[in-house]
Amino acid sequence: MQKVEISHRLAGPNARLIGKPGGLLELTTPALVLDLETFERNMRTYQHQVNLHGLKARPHAKSHKCPEIARRQIAAGAVGVCTASLHEAEAFVRHGINNILITSPVIGAGKLDRLLQLLAPGISVAVVVDDQERAASMAAAAHRSGQVLDVLLDVDLGMGRTGVSSIESALQLVNVVCDAEGISYRGIQAYSGSVQHIVDFAARDDVYTGQLRFLSELITALDKRGLKPPTVTGGGTGTLALDCRESILTEHQGGSYIFMDVEYGAVTLGTNDADAAFATSLFLHSTVISKNVPGTATIDAGLKSFATDGPLPRVSDGAPAGTTYAFFGDEHGRLTFPTLTHGLPLGSSVALVTPHCDPTVNLHDYLHVVRNNTIVDIWEIAGRGVL
Amino acid sequence: MQKVEISHRLAGPNARLIGKPGGLLELTTPALVLDLETFERNMRTYQHQVNLHGLKARPHAKSHKCPEIARRQIAAGAVGVCTASLHEAEAFVRHGINNILITSPVIGAGKLDRLLQLLAPGISVAVVVDDQERAASMAAAAHRSGQVLDVLLDVDLGMGRTGVSSIESALQLVNVVCDAEGISYRGIQAYSGSVQHIVDFAARDDVYTGQLRFLSELITALDKRGLKPPTVTGGGTGTLALDCRESILTEHQGGSYIFMDVEYGAVTLGTNDADAAFATSLFLHSTVISKNVPGTATIDAGLKSFATDGPLPRVSDGAPAGTTYAFFGDEHGRLTFPTLTHGLPLGSSVALVTPHCDPTVNLHDYLHVVRNNTIVDIWEIAGRGVL
Repeated sequence: MQKVEISHRLAGPNARLIGKPGGLLELTTPALVLDLETFERNMRTYQHQVNLHGLKARPHAKSHKCPEIARRQIAAGAVGVCTASLHEAEAFVRHGINNILITSPVIGAGKLDRLLQLLAPGISVAVVVDDQERAASMAAAAHRSGQVLDVLLDVDLGMGRTGVSSIESALQLVNVVCDAEGISYRGIQAYSGSVQHIVDFAARDDVYTGQLRFLSELITALDKRGLKPPTVTGGGTGTLALDCRESILTEHQGGSYIFMDVEYGAVTLGTNDADAAFATSLFLHSTVISKNVPGTATIDAGLKSFATDGPLPRVSDGAPAGTTYAFFGDEHGRLTFPTLTHGLPLGSSVALVTPHCDPTVNLHDYLHVVRNNTIVDIWEIAGRGVL
Repeated sequence: MQKVEISHRLAGPNARLIGKPGGLLELTTPALVLDLETFERNMRTYQHQVNLHGLKARPHAKSHKCPEIARRQIAAGAVGVCTASLHEAEAFVRHGINNILITSPVIGAGKLDRLLQLLAPGISVAVVVDDQERAASMAAAAHRSGQVLDVLLDVDLGMGRTGVSSIESALQLVNVVCDAEGISYRGIQAYSGSVQHIVDFAARDDVYTGQLRFLSELITALDKRGLKPPTVTGGGTGTLALDCRESILTEHQGGSYIFMDVEYGAVTLGTNDADAAFATSLFLHSTVISKNVPGTATIDAGLKSFATDGPLPRVSDGAPAGTTYAFFGDEHGRLTFPTLTHGLPLGSSVALVTPHCDPTVNLHDYLHVVRNNTIVDIWEIAGRGVL
């Protein structure tokens, strides 16, 4: 496996701590920290479970945006990764990842040109389409440039975000895709984002099974026309057990299983194995910077360190049991201790489990990789940002 | 004024559009766009109002994190800028800004060394302190390095985040600061973050006036001991009219007035002049990427484009009047049109007013600067991120 380049510019202000005994105690915060052993166990467990059910793994890199993690997922057996945007795909190709599916339609000024520029011998970048006109114009542009783009139909399972939502519109779209030169029909994508976080497994099973029934009907309809999708890609950490049980997908897009944030910590994954096997590997290390109010402390991690769209960060280490976190502005969080007499000295290190991991990781540039309490590496979050 | 360097690396994928007629229509999205004329008018109005009342302007750069904006604020008359963190201060010094106040205590492994490394002839970096022990150890470190750090007492007006909150503890702290070699007493900081967004002006006036009474008492107590603060710095866009009326501060830290986000758009600023003069200059340009659900469209701007801690983004341009926005995942937002028959073609450009501007700007790398519908420059948001 290629070693990631370490330089101060790429590894940030903690670069000098790599390999240093006790370096973790000197970590400049707020800093994302990855427990390497737990991460590796999560990765192996996922790959094993997917293999066991005859699925291919194509983990969704929107959760980590980190080429070194993608490299390790592929080394562990994944066929490639997903990215959520062209921007993420560009970052991954730049860092040597050569098998990518972009899971949203690529639409907007200049984007088709950039997409076509990613294609090169040995690099596979597939995209989804959900509109006939756009599929045709994409095909024409690819054809003009002398290239062929791999394309999957984006199928909406009920979220209403992207994708075609009826068998009729899917059949019309597949005809456009198959008729056009410049694009090649590779299958369908059917991702159900809205069910992943339904906390109760039986409720999730109920909703998702209905959605998969529609997906099966669509596959049958395509098959009847000789257009059986070679790849059916979708699924997430929340539906992993269901995707394995139902065997409709051929390729699985799990993302958050590597980190297990506060959101997924609250979700029952549905198999005893999976629930036991995936554990939290991603933490935010922070520092106490003020302590003038009894029973509380102010830490250096706020709106710029954590996503705010989901649950609150959960205090994990370095504070009394029962300590809670609240946002306290861009740079700050407030810890509230169980009693007024509890306190923490200035400069204390406090670790928290991250809320919704995807947009949390997007706020950071570096992942500090720790094994046995030593910082063994720092990985760049090269896919963060939007442009 | 020094021209900001333009290169593809520093200006992003839209660099080729600078100066190009019609370039705005080719903007790759999601992209932050600054209306230069409105921004300049906001900047002049603020400086004029602050001057008129005998205050100095020290705008808070946490709102923009952009050295080019800081440079312009100083050129317009500001004595310097504030930053919220050491990380932001480092970015600004690197880009030539030479008068900075860091408005939070600088505490954490390695941070004091980094702070001392910022000091150089011609560069003024002041910090706040709210703890006697830390003030003493900071002084000792500065003294050892042969330098003198400018220090202000951080005074808590009721938010409980940082700062000393009683006259007694302020007097104890000022004694430590004045006795120590290596630090120099420059005054006090008293910022009331919690009142800035109280929507009703009279209610804000009521709470804030009580806080300022405490501040006056503290200043009198310091004065009695021959320690009258040379600088009293604080205030924000929400209290600008009150800070001007009360004349207790000597230096004003307004930040959001340059952009006027959705949050501040809802706040009555208290003077007819100010309310009329500050207008929205910051927008997020997005693109419609899916339209399969009647009455809605999916755009390429979601959790990675907008802060989610405050109000929702407001649709400003490019969609029928009455269109609303909802978050729809990391990369997407859902526009809901006034009726089911409304729609927008794929690829349409839609502009939105940003919610809470500080953490929104933090998500982006580039500010696309527009005058008369032409992209005239792209400014790097060099202070974004946390490390």
